[in-house]
Amino acid sequence: MLRLVCTNTIYPEHSIIGTSALKIRIEQLNTIVGDINGNTKQVLGALSRASEAGMDLLVLPELAISGYPPMDLLERAVFRDAVYRANEKIIQSTGNTAILFGSFVSNEGPGRRMFNAALLAHNGKLISTTHKTLLPTYDIFDEFRYFEPNRSFDVVEFAGHKLGITICEDIWNTENEIIYHVYDQNPAARLKEKGAEILFNVSASPFSKGKAPLRLKMLQKHARELQIPIIYANQVGANTEVLFDGDSMALQADGSVVATTEMFEASFTDVLWKDGQLKSLSEYVVRDFSIEERIYKALVMGIRDYLDKSGLKRNLILGLSGGIDSALVATMACEAVGARNVTGLTMPSEFSSEGSVTDSQKLARALGMSIHEVPIKSLFNEFSTALSPLFEGTEFNVAEENLQSRIRGGLLMAMSNKFGSILLNTGNKSELAVGYCTLYGDMNGGLSVISDLYKQEVYALSNWLNDSYFGREVIPYDTINKPPSAELRPDQKDSDSLPDYDVLDDILKRYIEDQLSRDEIVGSGHGAETVDRVLKLVDLNEYKRRQSPPGLRLSAKAFGIGRRLPIVQRWTGHEADV
Amino acid sequence: MLRLVCTNTIYPEHSIIGTSALKIRIEQLNTIVGDINGNTKQVLGALSRASEAGMDLLVLPELAISGYPPMDLLERAVFRDAVYRANEKIIQSTGNTAILFGSFVSNEGPGRRMFNAALLAHNGKLISTTHKTLLPTYDIFDEFRYFEPNRSFDVVEFAGHKLGITICEDIWNTENEIIYHVYDQNPAARLKEKGAEILFNVSASPFSKGKAPLRLKMLQKHARELQIPIIYANQVGANTEVLFDGDSMALQADGSVVATTEMFEASFTDVLWKDGQLKSLSEYVVRDFSIEERIYKALVMGIRDYLDKSGLKRNLILGLSGGIDSALVATMACEAVGARNVTGLTMPSEFSSEGSVTDSQKLARALGMSIHEVPIKSLFNEFSTALSPLFEGTEFNVAEENLQSRIRGGLLMAMSNKFGSILLNTGNKSELAVGYCTLYGDMNGGLSVISDLYKQEVYALSNWLNDSYFGREVIPYDTINKPPSAELRPDQKDSDSLPDYDVLDDILKRYIEDQLSRDEIVGSGHGAETVDRVLKLVDLNEYKRRQSPPGLRLSAKAFGIGRRLPIVQRWTGHEADV
Repeated sequence: MLRLVCTNTIYPEHSIIGTSALKIRIEQLNTIVGDINGNTKQVLGALSRASEAGMDLLVLPELAISGYPPMDLLERAVFRDAVYRANEKIIQSTGNTAILFGSFVSNEGPGRRMFNAALLAHNGKLISTTHKTLLPTYDIFDEFRYFEPNRSFDVVEFAGHKLGITICEDIWNTENEIIYHVYDQNPAARLKEKGAEILFNVSASPFSKGKAPLRLKMLQKHARELQIPIIYANQVGANTEVLFDGDSMALQADGSVVATTEMFEASFTDVLWKDGQLKSLSEYVVRDFSIEERIYKALVMGIRDYLDKSGLKRNLILGLSGGIDSALVATMACEAVGARNVTGLTMPSEFSSEGSVTDSQKLARALGMSIHEVPIKSLFNEFSTALSPLFEGTEFNVAEENLQSRIRGGLLMAMSNKFGSILLNTGNKSELAVGYCTLYGDMNGGLSVISDLYKQEVYALSNWLNDSYFGREVIPYDTINKPPSAELRPDQKDSDSLPDYDVLDDILKRYIEDQLSRDEIVGSGHGAETVDRVLKLVDLNEYKRRQSPPGLRLSAKAFGIGRRLPIVQRWTGHEADV
Repeated sequence: MLRLVCTNTIYPEHSIIGTSALKIRIEQLNTIVGDINGNTKQVLGALSRASEAGMDLLVLPELAISGYPPMDLLERAVFRDAVYRANEKIIQSTGNTAILFGSFVSNEGPGRRMFNAALLAHNGKLISTTHKTLLPTYDIFDEFRYFEPNRSFDVVEFAGHKLGITICEDIWNTENEIIYHVYDQNPAARLKEKGAEILFNVSASPFSKGKAPLRLKMLQKHARELQIPIIYANQVGANTEVLFDGDSMALQADGSVVATTEMFEASFTDVLWKDGQLKSLSEYVVRDFSIEERIYKALVMGIRDYLDKSGLKRNLILGLSGGIDSALVATMACEAVGARNVTGLTMPSEFSSEGSVTDSQKLARALGMSIHEVPIKSLFNEFSTALSPLFEGTEFNVAEENLQSRIRGGLLMAMSNKFGSILLNTGNKSELAVGYCTLYGDMNGGLSVISDLYKQEVYALSNWLNDSYFGREVIPYDTINKPPSAELRPDQKDSDSLPDYDVLDDILKRYIEDQLSRDEIVGSGHGAETVDRVLKLVDLNEYKRRQSPPGLRLSAKAFGIGRRLPIVQRWTGHEADV
C-alpha cells in the first residue's frame, strides 16, 4: 500500500480567511475513552497549534471529547453534562482559527438522549451542529443504543463557502457491512445536491486488515461520483479492543490523494483549499506499507495503549511454550514496552518437548527479554495426589490435560499479582474458534494480542518479522518449522484433534467473517464431515469465548464485543425438516 | 403478590367463531434460542391442543420460532430463511383455531433486514402481519441491531372484530427504562383511536425482581386509560442469562385481572371474550407469591434451563466455603437437579476456619448432596516452592491470596472435566462489583447463579428459605451468623477491605442500577471517601467482570451482556475542571 509521508511543511505567511481560500489542518488525535479533561486538553492544544501555524480551520475526529467507543458511559447524565460543558469550552476557545470536531450533543426531542454530532465553531461562537445520519448498529457498534439519527440535510455556510459535513458511517452508505442493512440515505450526495463545495468527514472508523484500501476506494468513489474534494479526519489509537489506524487524508475531486497523516500515530497534515482545488502544504515522500506492517503496528499500538491509557506500568509477562503464538506475542510485547519490561516463563511438564524450553530461551535471547523456567511436574503430581481419592479408577483425559494448562495459568497470574505485570494472552483465532484452549489456563490474560489472527496469519506475520522487519532470525526457525502441539499428553499434535490449519482457517473465515452457511461452506469444496465438525466446535465453545480476555480487533468480525451469540442455543445450520 | 392459579377448566361445548364471542387461549411457551425445529413443534403442539379444546384463537409470545434473544444468529441468512419457512408452515397448519404468534419477517425495503412481528393466521392463511414499533435498544436489548421499526398503525379485522396488536415494548412506552429514551409513540393508544376493541401484546419481557408488579400496573393503566381489554402473552423460561417469568394474563377494560398463567412454567389460560367482556374459562384460587419466592423460582429455572437447553447432563459441582453464598447456591442447585446430582468440594487451607469444613458438611447433610474434602495446604506449599526463586524477598500479598483461590478453582474444574459436571459460580453482586473475587479462582464457573444478588439479598433469601420455604435449618445458622470472610490470610474479614454490606450494597445499587452520580450518592448520606473508594473499585474491576461467567439476570442492570463499559477508560465522576 502506497503511503504519502510528510517530510517538511511550508506555510504561506498570511491568514486567508474571508477570501476564497482556506488553510485546513486535518489532525488525528489519540483520545482516551472517558477522559473528558484530557481529551479536551488535547483538542485545545491542537487548536492552539493550528492557530499558531496560521490555519483557518482545524478538523478533528468523531466523539473527540468522550473518546470512542464510550459505550454505556453515555447512559450517565453526569457524564453527558461534562461533555456538554467541554463542548462549550472548546467553542468559547476558538478565535481566528475555526474548529470542526466530533462530539455528542443533547437531544431535547423524543427518541434517544443524544445526537452524535460534528460542531463547527469560530471566534468563540458555534457556527453549526451537524447530526450523524447513519448510525452503525452492528458488530462492535451500538450507536442506536445511544443516539437519535439525523433526518434532514443542509450545507453549512462558512467563510463564503458551502461546506458539506458528514460523520463517519454517513459516507459508508453503500460500501461497508451491507450484509446487515440497506441504507436508503446517501448523506454525501444529499449535501452535494444542496450545493456543497467540499465534503468533510469526521470519523472514528476502526482499523481492520482490509480497511485502508477499502477506505481509500470509498473516499475516491465519493470524490469522483460527486466531483467534490474531501477532507477526512479519523481517530488513531487503541481503546481496549478497538484499534484505530487514523489514515486521515485529503482528496481532490478527481479522487487523487493530496495529503495524508502518518498511520498509527497522533499526527496531522495541512492543506490549502483554493479555487476548488486542494493542495498539500507539506512535502511528501511515498512509501510502502505492507499488510503485515499494518497488522504489526496496530497490535503493538494496541498493547501499548492498553497499558498507558489504563495507567498501568509498562510491565508485561507471558508464558513461552516454544510455539509460534507465544513467540509472536513476545516479539510484539518487546516492541511495545521494551524488552527489559517483558518477562517470559517457560513451564515444562513431562510431556513437553526439549524445544519448548530451548526454543523459548533462544527467542528470549534474540529479543533481549528475561525468561525464567518453572517446571510444573511436581505441581501436577501434587494435584494428582490431592485428587486421587476422587479420580480413582479413571483414565488420564482432558481433566489432566487442562490441569497442566491451569497450573501454568496460575503461575503466570501469581507473577502478575506479585510484580504488577500484565499477563498477555497468546491464543490465536483458530484455536479460540474451536475451543482448542483451556479456560482458566492458557486462556488467562488481561489482553489477547493475536486472538483475531488465524494460525496461518500467525505464521505469515512471524515470517515477515524475521525476513523483512528484523532481517534476521528473531522468532526461531525451529519454532516456525515444528508441527504445532499443545504438548499436554505424550506425542500430542494439533493435527490429532483438528483439520490442517489451511483447511481449518478457510472454513473458519467463511463461517465467522463471511457468515456463510454450512451448505455454502461445503459447496466451496470442503468435506461435509469436516465442515460439520468445525462448525459444531465453534458453536459449542461460545461459553469459553464469553470468558476470554478482550482481544485486539483486526477483522470485520473478531470474537468479543462485536460478535454476540447466545451460549445456550440449538441452531446447528441443519434445519432440513422446516 | 396475589396470584390467580388455575384449578379447573370448563369449556363451552361449541365453537363460536363467526359470532361476536371468541374463546382465546393465552399460552406461554418455554422456547429454546435457535431451536427452530423444536420451537416450531412446540407452536404446532399448542395449536393442536388449542384446537382440540375448541379455542377460536391461540395467542403465543414474541419471537416464538427463533426464541428470545436470538442475538447474532439473526445475522445469518440461512437462519432467517429457516424461520421464514417455519412461519409459513405454522400459517399453513392453521384450521378453525386461529393463531397469533411472534416471529420475525423479512424487510424487503431499506433499513435492517427484518421486522420483529406478530402474525395472525387462520384456516391456512395469513390474516395480518404487525410490525413492532418500539424496539428496545438498551441494557440486554439490541433490537435496532437487527430490526427495522414499524411506523404505521392499523387494527386487524378478524371474526367481525377489530383487534389491536402490539409487541412487547410497544406497550411499555412510558413505564420502563425511560432514562434511556423518550418514546413519542404510544402504539396502544393509536390502535384504540383506530377502533381497536381489544388489545393483544405478544411479549418476551424478562423477569426482574420488581417486574411483575410493574407489569401489572402498566397493563392496568393501559386498560383503564384506553378502556380496552388486554390479552398479554409472555415467554417463560431461561435462555443463558435472561430469565422469563411468563406471567401472561387477561385484563378487563376496568383493569381487573380475569385470568393468569402459572409463573415460571410453560402453561396456559383460557378466556371467553363476549360483548366486550373477558371472562375466565377456568376456576381460580388466589395465592401469594413473595418476592423471595419469585427470585428463588427464577434462579432455579435458570440453572435447570441452562443445563437442559444446552443438552448437558443434570450434574452440578460447586465449592463449599462454609459461607452464605455457596450455601445458597448449593440449595438452589439441589432444587434444580436433585441433591444426588450435586457435588460439593470443601477445600480448606491453613487460613480456613474450622467452620469452613463443618458448616459445609452440615449444609450437605441437610440438603442430601455429596461433599468431598480436598485440603489445599500441600498444593499451596508446592506452588510456593516452585515460585520461591522468583518470589524471594517478597512479602505474602494478593499473589498468595489469589493462588489459594486459583488452586481451588483448578480442583473444581478438574472435577468438572473428569465427570462432566458443570461448575456453578457462587459469587454475589456486591463482590463482583468491587472485584472482591479472584479471576480464574472463585470467579470460575459455567454459570453464575447469584451474581445479580447483593450480599444483603443473599442473606434475605437464605433466611426466607430456612424460615418459610423449608421451615427448618437447611442453610446452617452458623453460616448465616458468622462475619463474612474470604479466609485467604490469617483472621481476614470482608470488613477489613470493604464497607459494611448495608452501606456497600446501598452505594452499589445507586451507582449501578439507578445510575446516580458520585455527587448524588454522597448527597444521599454516604461519606464522600467511602463513595469514592467504592466507585473507583467498581470502575477498576471492569476487566474482571469481562471475563466472568454469564450470570442469571434479576435486576434492571445486571453485570454481563446488558452492561457495556469499556475496560480502558478514565471517567471517574470527578470532572470539576470542565
